Amino acid sequence: MRFSKLITDLQKGSSGLEASELGTDPDLLSGASIEQALSNQICFLEAGNSLSKELNSTKAGAVIIPSQEDLIEIAQRRELAWATFKNPRLAFAEVLELLQPTPQNISGIHPSAVIHENVFLGDNISIGANVFIGNGSRIASKSVIYPGAVIYENVILGEACIVHANAVIHPRTKLGKKCVIHSNAVIGSEGFGFVPTPNGWRKMPQTGRVVLQDEVEIGCGSNIDRPAVGETFIGAGTKIDNLVQIGHGVTTGKDCAMAAQVGIAGGARLGNGVILAGQVGVGNRVKVGDRVVASSKCGIHSDVAPDQVVSGFPAIPNRLWLRCSIAFSKLPEMAKTIKELTKRETS
Amino acid sequence: MRFSKLITDLQKGSSGLEASELGTDPDLLSGASIEQALSNQICFLEAGNSLSKELNSTKAGAVIIPSQEDLIEIAQRRELAWATFKNPRLAFAEVLELLQPTPQNISGIHPSAVIHENVFLGDNISIGANVFIGNGSRIASKSVIYPGAVIYENVILGEACIVHANAVIHPRTKLGKKCVIHSNAVIGSEGFGFVPTPNGWRKMPQTGRVVLQDEVEIGCGSNIDRPAVGETFIGAGTKIDNLVQIGHGVTTGKDCAMAAQVGIAGGARLGNGVILAGQVGVGNRVKVGDRVVASSKCGIHSDVAPDQVVSGFPAIPNRLWLRCSIAFSKLPEMAKTIKELTKRETS
Amino acid sequence: MRFSKLITDLQKGSSGLEASELGTDPDLLSGASIEQALSNQICFLEAGNSLSKELNSTKAGAVIIPSQEDLIEIAQRRELAWATFKNPRLAFAEVLELLQPTPQNISGIHPSAVIHENVFLGDNISIGANVFIGNGSRIASKSVIYPGAVIYENVILGEACIVHANAVIHPRTKLGKKCVIHSNAVIGSEGFGFVPTPNGWRKMPQTGRVVLQDEVEIGCGSNIDRPAVGETFIGAGTKIDNLVQIGHGVTTGKDCAMAAQVGIAGGARLGNGVILAGQVGVGNRVKVGDRVVASSKCGIHSDVAPDQVVSGFPAIPNRLWLRCSIAFSKLPEMAKTIKELTKRETS
Repeated sequence: MRFSKLITDLQKGSSGLEASELGTDPDLLSGASIEQALSNQICFLEAGNSLSKELNSTKAGAVIIPSQEDLIEIAQRRELAWATFKNPRLAFAEVLELLQPTPQNISGIHPSAVIHENVFLGDNISIGANVFIGNGSRIASKSVIYPGAVIYENVILGEACIVHANAVIHPRTKLGKKCVIHSNAVIGSEGFGFVPTPNGWRKMPQTGRVVLQDEVEIGCGSNIDRPAVGETFIGAGTKIDNLVQIGHGVTTGKDCAMAAQVGIAGGARLGNGVILAGQVGVGNRVKVGDRVVASSKCGIHSDVAPDQVVSGFPAIPNRLWLRCSIAFSKLPEMAKTIKELTKRETS
Repeated sequence: MRFSKLITDLQKGSSGLEASELGTDPDLLSGASIEQALSNQICFLEAGNSLSKELNSTKAGAVIIPSQEDLIEIAQRRELAWATFKNPRLAFAEVLELLQPTPQNISGIHPSAVIHENVFLGDNISIGANVFIGNGSRIASKSVIYPGAVIYENVILGEACIVHANAVIHPRTKLGKKCVIHSNAVIGSEGFGFVPTPNGWRKMPQTGRVVLQDEVEIGCGSNIDRPAVGETFIGAGTKIDNLVQIGHGVTTGKDCAMAAQVGIAGGARLGNGVILAGQVGVGNRVKVGDRVVASSKCGIHSDVAPDQVVSGFPAIPNRLWLRCSIAFSKLPEMAKTIKELTKRETS
Repeated sequence: MRFSKLITDLQKGSSGLEASELGTDPDLLSGASIEQALSNQICFLEAGNSLSKELNSTKAGAVIIPSQEDLIEIAQRRELAWATFKNPRLAFAEVLELLQPTPQNISGIHPSAVIHENVFLGDNISIGANVFIGNGSRIASKSVIYPGAVIYENVILGEACIVHANAVIHPRTKLGKKCVIHSNAVIGSEGFGFVPTPNGWRKMPQTGRVVLQDEVEIGCGSNIDRPAVGETFIGAGTKIDNLVQIGHGVTTGKDCAMAAQVGIAGGARLGNGVILAGQVGVGNRVKVGDRVVASSKCGIHSDVAPDQVVSGFPAIPNRLWLRCSIAFSKLPEMAKTIKELTKRETS
């Protein structure tokens, strides 16, 4: 796609095009990083990006940059095709979508799919090879189910959902519109509920269900368990990475983001816009306020007020944790000093 | 189901019914939490439950409570149907099972299942769509295998096992009676054994097998690896949550419980009744004594005696760890104080 | 297999046979641990192995031992068949392979497999039941794909790859020769890339691909994500255990090893021969030098120079961390001592 055509299309986007120069109006094939881009590729820089100096040497045909005079000057001197945006990262997302629109590779219902006779199927859906859909489930229009996925009974998929290969959705789960379930994720499985008895663990039946609101995304191999009673609830627009565990009865607000290998224990409640970095753990029934950010490997054992940044285990305010961590590495010295002080005292 | 019928059935259970009043003998549909229950629902409270005050306002039709006069008084005043039990949580488990018995949704052998001619199939089994069962495997009676599950060669399933969708069981694995393998779990795969050589890592063949005793439950996406030689062994009644890793040659006792994302390295040995909370790690060949409890994110690097409660990384006694964690957050202050003391000393 | 035959075969191996005595030249069926071996089994010891004393009582028919006079003496006295090797562990790996060669259980293409007409299939391949292979993919000769695996479009598998049951390989992924993808692993799925906008998270299209060089092994349930642009790259001979997360755009060198539940965030770069123990985390864009070893649960937030051994979170040199950890458990005492010192000072 010519750079000029791209710029025209981006004007309809929401990334805030500000200025541009077409240079040789290169024909662009794909996106790349500024270090690896070739003459038929486009790359981007954000304000303050440590790779900014690469603009002097990039072989990219075109660059997306923030509105900084120094960067514009380099782009002009090098006769690159360039454009400035309020949100260069968002512009790059829009560019990639324009250059390489997501293909809809499967279409219609593959004859090897096993679909119970009592399943509602909307228009324009795609169901891949060896998919199974159980009694009473409903698949709304424009949904795509990739090969090997298994959907148990009485599951509801909203419009334009995508279920990737070998994912599994258990009974009664309800998905809103435009949800994405990645490969091998499991939604709506039994929560881990057992009652201790003199004869060992007795299973607490998990009669509840999982509800995902619109535009929720669940990563590969992640699990969202259903509760004994009531719902496990994931708010609209929440994005969950790979290998994440969401326990029974957890509730999240809207637009949360959880990185890989996060684990949230049963009954925890997250507000809106909560961000959990990789390998974070949240304890049973803990309440995490709106817009809380937890850094990686953090363990949240007790409630966190809104707008806090927390770190460590048990979680404490991030700034305090950074200072404590530095002090931790000086503990042997501190111990030695204390010993010496004590010796002098008592001598 | 009428509350009166429920009470009659619960008398045959093991939760210790003590007293009850039928109130209006409500017709109950399902269970719910005390906060969300409606007039056709039943809920429960345990002794010391922080939600006890909700009994004053719950809209539940019936309540299960411990034998506490204050709670009975409220239930009577509010003319609720109520019953007291020695073990209210167990009573609630029994109630849910009575109200919503687990359905056996698939039955017989689906024609799309691919079963080797040399497979033994017991009576009254269910094998779902697109299941594969390899040469020499044996599926005992009353077992249920959900769609997409793959069972390799020479696997033995005891009576009344449940294998959920897309789970995989590798060669020679042996399951006792009433085991449950949840979706996408992998049992009996090759242990991670490689020998360093001048030409890189050389695979140590994993010729052993995995044995699960009766009533073992393995969560979604969890992996139980087989060893180079001998067995990986999970004791009867042990319950394992989602995304747990059990390395090659691990042995556990009976009735252990492991929460999500626990990892146990090769050759570790757990006693009976060990409880590991979420994201706990246990090191190579470590021995963990009977009834040890490890709190979340704990890292157990060396042997732990029976009946200990441990926390932190490396794991130390829980009470000590709690005090150390509080002190950790005061490290910057401590460092400052030490500096001041040193200054005065040397001045 | 007779011990004498085994010894003859091992002379062609690379484990450095040094001396041997045939004893009664036992007929050996399989390998076992020295504690559990029977008269038709063979076991091994390494130099310094804590089980060496078991040589006095083992019921094994044959033993592989290091060249230590004390061990040879015991083996001779007990009239065991024995052999000494420079690398006894490697010898045992070779023995297991000789005694129990890996079976190729499936062969040819199962009629239930769904393979797009535009797929290249090499010679001598095996494709199991219910496998799906998408448009434009290429499966080189001698590859084995187990039941239920799903291979999307334009995937390239090199010679003699093994893809285990229910694994999923996403579009454009390229595997070298002799790669092994274990059950339920997901390779080449979308990286976790979202741009924050006033209307919530906007997906950054993930147009890149994953490349695995020759002899890479990916454990059960592990995920290797593809990046927005460019490649996620795993160097030749790298072995990855179960439930590991490799983020978008990560690069590893050759012959790395990662234990279970490791998580590597987007853009991190590992050198050659890096070893990460269980549950280790590596942060965004961090560079980890050649031959770095990170102990379990370690969190690497900033670059690590080659040949370091690191531990803890944030990661510090292992020896320092060991001392700091001991000091940590004495923090309450330290705090008390400081308090007393201060009191005396001010009194």
